[in-house]
Order: sequence, then C-alpha cells, then structure tokens
Amino acid sequence: MAISDAGTQQPGGDGRDLDTLAKRVAAVMWAEDSASQALGMHIVDVGAGRAALTMTVRADMTNGHGICHGGFMFSLADSAFAFACNSHNHRAVAQACDIVFVAPVRLGDELVATAVERLRNGRNGICDVTVRRGEEVVAEFRGRSRLINGAVLDEAAAGEGDT
Amino acid sequence: MAISDAGTQQPGGDGRDLDTLAKRVAAVMWAEDSASQALGMHIVDVGAGRAALTMTVRADMTNGHGICHGGFMFSLADSAFAFACNSHNHRAVAQACDIVFVAPVRLGDELVATAVERLRNGRNGICDVTVRRGEEVVAEFRGRSRLINGAVLDEAAAGEGDT
Amino acid sequence: MAISDAGTQQPGGDGRDLDTLAKRVAAVMWAEDSASQALGMHIVDVGAGRAALTMTVRADMTNGHGICHGGFMFSLADSAFAFACNSHNHRAVAQACDIVFVAPVRLGDELVATAVERLRNGRNGICDVTVRRGEEVVAEFRGRSRLINGAVLDEAAAGEGDT
Amino acid sequence: MAISDAGTQQPGGDGRDLDTLAKRVAAVMWAEDSASQALGMHIVDVGAGRAALTMTVRADMTNGHGICHGGFMFSLADSAFAFACNSHNHRAVAQACDIVFVAPVRLGDELVATAVERLRNGRNGICDVTVRRGEEVVAEFRGRSRLINGAVLDEAAAGEGDT
Repeated sequence: MAISDAGTQQPGGDGRDLDTLAKRVAAVMWAEDSASQALGMHIVDVGAGRAALTMTVRADMTNGHGICHGGFMFSLADSAFAFACNSHNHRAVAQACDIVFVAPVRLGDELVATAVERLRNGRNGICDVTVRRGEEVVAEFRGRSRLINGAVLDEAAAGEGDT
Repeated sequence: MAISDAGTQQPGGDGRDLDTLAKRVAAVMWAEDSASQALGMHIVDVGAGRAALTMTVRADMTNGHGICHGGFMFSLADSAFAFACNSHNHRAVAQACDIVFVAPVRLGDELVATAVERLRNGRNGICDVTVRRGEEVVAEFRGRSRLINGAVLDEAAAGEGDT
Repeated sequence: MAISDAGTQQPGGDGRDLDTLAKRVAAVMWAEDSASQALGMHIVDVGAGRAALTMTVRADMTNGHGICHGGFMFSLADSAFAFACNSHNHRAVAQACDIVFVAPVRLGDELVATAVERLRNGRNGICDVTVRRGEEVVAEFRGRSRLINGAVLDEAAAGEGDT
Repeated sequence: MAISDAGTQQPGGDGRDLDTLAKRVAAVMWAEDSASQALGMHIVDVGAGRAALTMTVRADMTNGHGICHGGFMFSLADSAFAFACNSHNHRAVAQACDIVFVAPVRLGDELVATAVERLRNGRNGICDVTVRRGEEVVAEFRGRSRLINGAVLDEAAAGEGDT
C-alpha cells in the first residue's frame, strides 16, 4: 500500500486502501485514548482525512449557567480532529484551534462532531469540524495540525495484507 | 455598590469593592459548576476582570499520544475565562475562543490558568488566558464573551454589606 | 421575491432569484467600494452566500521580505467575505476574522479568493474563504459576520422585476 | 553584542543593546517595505519585541459601508507585528493571524497599532497588537510567527559598534 500523498497540498483519500488504513490507525489510537473513552465518545465514521465522533452530555459536563461547559464541546471536536489528521498514519499534533459556539447545549443532548481535512501542505494541515445536535449546528471548530516524526502503525503493520 | 463600568471600553477593577463582588459572584458560580469541580479544578484567585484556576492532569485526561488531551487544557482556560468575564455580575457567555498549544503536558502536571480581561466594549469582551506549568507557558488562549441579560447575584445580594 | 431565509441556520441560495438578488446587491456595493477598486480587484462570481474576486500583486503590495504583504492577501479575502455575507441584501459587517498563510505570494501573482458561507444563525454568520494562485492554496480565511439593520438595496429596488 | 535569548520562552528585551539592534533591523526592513510606505504608515516606536506604527485612513481605504475596509486595519496591525517579531534580527514570518473588529473607523482617522510580543518558544512566537484611535481601541489582533533561516542584518553589521 503506497501512502504517497503526504507531500501534496490537497487532502487525499482517493481510494478504499486509504480508508482501510485510516480505520486501522484509528483502532490503535482509540485503544490508548483514555480521555476520549472516559468522556463517553464513540467513533461513528473514520476514513482518509475524515472522522465523526459522538458524545452525550452528562451531568458532570454542565457548568454554572446550566449548559454544557464549552470545554467538552471543544474536546469532542478536538478528538474528531485528531482522528482525521492522523488518519494517513503520519503522527500529527494540534498546533492551534479555534471554536465558535453557535448554540447552547444541554444535559442529555447527543452531539456529533464531523471532521474533514481542508488542506495539507507539507507538515501543516487545516481541519474543519462541525458539531451538531441532530440537524442543528451547535459549534464550528477549525484546527491546525503539524506532522511530527513517526507513524501510528509501524511500517510492517501498515503494509500487511498488501501481498 | 455601584457597578457602573459596564459601558466603558477598558476593563475596570479600580477598587476593592469590585474585587469583593467578583469573589461573591465566583462563589455562586462555583457552587453550581459541576464540570469544573468534576475536573478537579480549584480557584486560586479571582477579582474584577481576572481569575486564576489550577488543575492537575489525571490519567483520564491523557490521549493517544501519551499526553494531556487538548480539550482539558482548553477546559481549564475556558473556566478561568468564565470566572473573569462574569466577575462584574453581568452574565456573560463565550462566543468564540482560540487556543495555541505551546508545549505538551503530561500525567501529573499541575497547571495554572490565569485569565485577564483585555477589553470590554458594550456587550462584547476579550479575555486572554495563559496556561502555565510552573514558570513555563504551555498554552495561550483568547476568549470573546458577550453579555446576556441577567446577573449572577440578584441585586439585593450584590448590594448587601454596602450600608 | 421573497427573501425569507434570514432566520434559518443553514445558508440558503436555493434558486436563481437569490443569485440575481446577490448580483444586484454586489453591483451597488461595488460602485461605492473605493478600497477594493483601488486594489485592482475584480468580481468574477457572486451568488447567494458566495463570491469570488481576483487581484494581481503589485509592486506597492510587497514587503520587506520580497513577498506580498499579508495585509493585501487578507484584504482580498475580506472583500470576498463581504460580498458573500451581504449577498442576501441584509447589511452585514465583519466581527472577527482569522487567516492562515499557507504559501508566500510574489509580485505579479494573480490571486483568486473564493468565499462560501458556512453558517447563518440568527444575526451571526461564518464564511470560509480560500485564496488560490492557480490551483495552489496560498491562504485560508474564516470570517464571522453580524447583521446590522438595513438593506443594501431598498425594498422597492430589491423587489423590482417580480411582477 | 550577544543575542542569546532566541531559545528562551519569554520575550527578551532586557537592555538598551537589544533596543538598538531592533531599531537598526527596523531601518533595514523599512527601506525595502514598499507596502507599508505606500499605505502611508510611519514607525513611531520600535524596540526588542515591540513596535508601534501609525496610519491615517485615506479615501482609497474606505469600503461600501462608508468605513475603513478591514483589510487596511489588518495591514497596519500586521506591519507592527512584523517589526516586533523581526526585532531580534532573526527573520520571522507570519503563520496565522486573527483580528477582532471592535469599532468602525472612518476617513481621516489616525490609527496607532502597538505590537508587543507575548511569547517566544523555539521557532514560534505570539504577538498581540492593539489598534487605537486616540484612546479608543478599534481592533485587537493576535499574530503567530515562525522563525525562518537568516538574519535581517548580516552578522558583521549586527555586531558593529560592540568593540
């Protein structure tokens, strides 16, 4: 399996192989992601340059105004961002993120964060994440990633099944 | 006690009365802030237009790269922002925030987020929050707030002790 | 012509009438937009919730590093943003914008900024603008708008031709 | 003259030598900065990690709403940012910037942008710029810089006068 799109400017994801790799990378990341697990997140979709995660607002996520603390909306978006920008099996970290809070979210609401890479350019990437409650957008997030050295899956594991 | 600085452009905080009010507002907010409590935060300082909170990174805050999930660094900064921008006893909510991740943070690290209002202009405000581990800056956060109707403390409570 | 989509959360633009209105609004805005004219911009497309503008980098737009001053890349994106978020004939102003500089731009380069509304929610909107040189992305911009009172075209003008 | 603070996390500027270097760097940058000159800017202060520039709003800077096009407010802030983050004689470029528009600005208004480095960490920096009209804040800007290879002044020029 050739993963040769890292140096291109536009997001890749031109085939099923890339989506399969993304799913295997996500499985490894998820296994060690205590934070996302503890927040009750679930991965509902992952592919090359994209990810969608859900989370339901619990009582311990609400703040002094009776609404979900913004930090948990951010956390959900940030996790979706992480799965999307690591999906090519090159380790990436968040450099900076911004979030616009569009509507308040309350106890029991089920949220879905959908992350889509907008740009990859050398070591830098931009990923847009929309957080929805049903059809309604409740937050818009944009994350900037940077590749660091190393892979999530080692080479042998990434390539297995190709023969 | 006159809280007449809401319409001014620059942050207030010109007296002990304002700091006292801020502390009483914070006590009411804290009592109902399940999220910040559940994350193990503590308020170490609060005054007119400012707040400082601490949090220690727990195992359930770490992510797939063995470092603190960015969402928890954001949450700490966001809570400090909330206490600072509500400190004048006018209810304020976050409109949008951005965060730059300066250094990775690990299990057991004790973080301190220091929030200082930069600007208040009509209903809009800007607040800068620096997150440190000891002397080292690990994140820089900027939040934009908007006043909504209502006070945290009711008028009688806000004014008591003035006679 | 009914412009009834202002209160909806998702961008409209479901018909040719809305695109026609957008073009008429743009013509009025352009006539008085000394700044965009003086910078040598041209509108290459406008419709409901979208706009595309071009600009060629002149010698007086270059800075101390021999490349286009970032302010002019921002200006092009900001103009495209303005035409897109005013396209519904409700006056809108920029609240806040951010820009990521992806690649340096040089004297003589022809840039195209493509603005697409991402969200409209009550008085607030989010618009994404990509600046390209040929196929290559050179900057990504996100603007947040807020509706103010008033229309670009007066009611009679906006409705003419409907009968 | 030793410029040894590049690796420290906090902004330097601990002496007159550093301010003198900053002024010499600024003179070289200004001489080739066609853009800032063409916009009628003037440097009113520069030192290690800081800069202040003025600009008066001209007719060709106004837009369709009769107010200064946001791109020119951004350009002024961006120039102040550039002089501040290059002041240590290591070439730096803007990675990303955000701006909040606080108040509209009109033809003839004289603006002052004051840039102060907030953080330097390895190759990355954060610089805050406030744009004022008299005492009134009209915009808040935050820029993120990245060092590239090379100096503004060559070594011999930077060190002259030290003997």
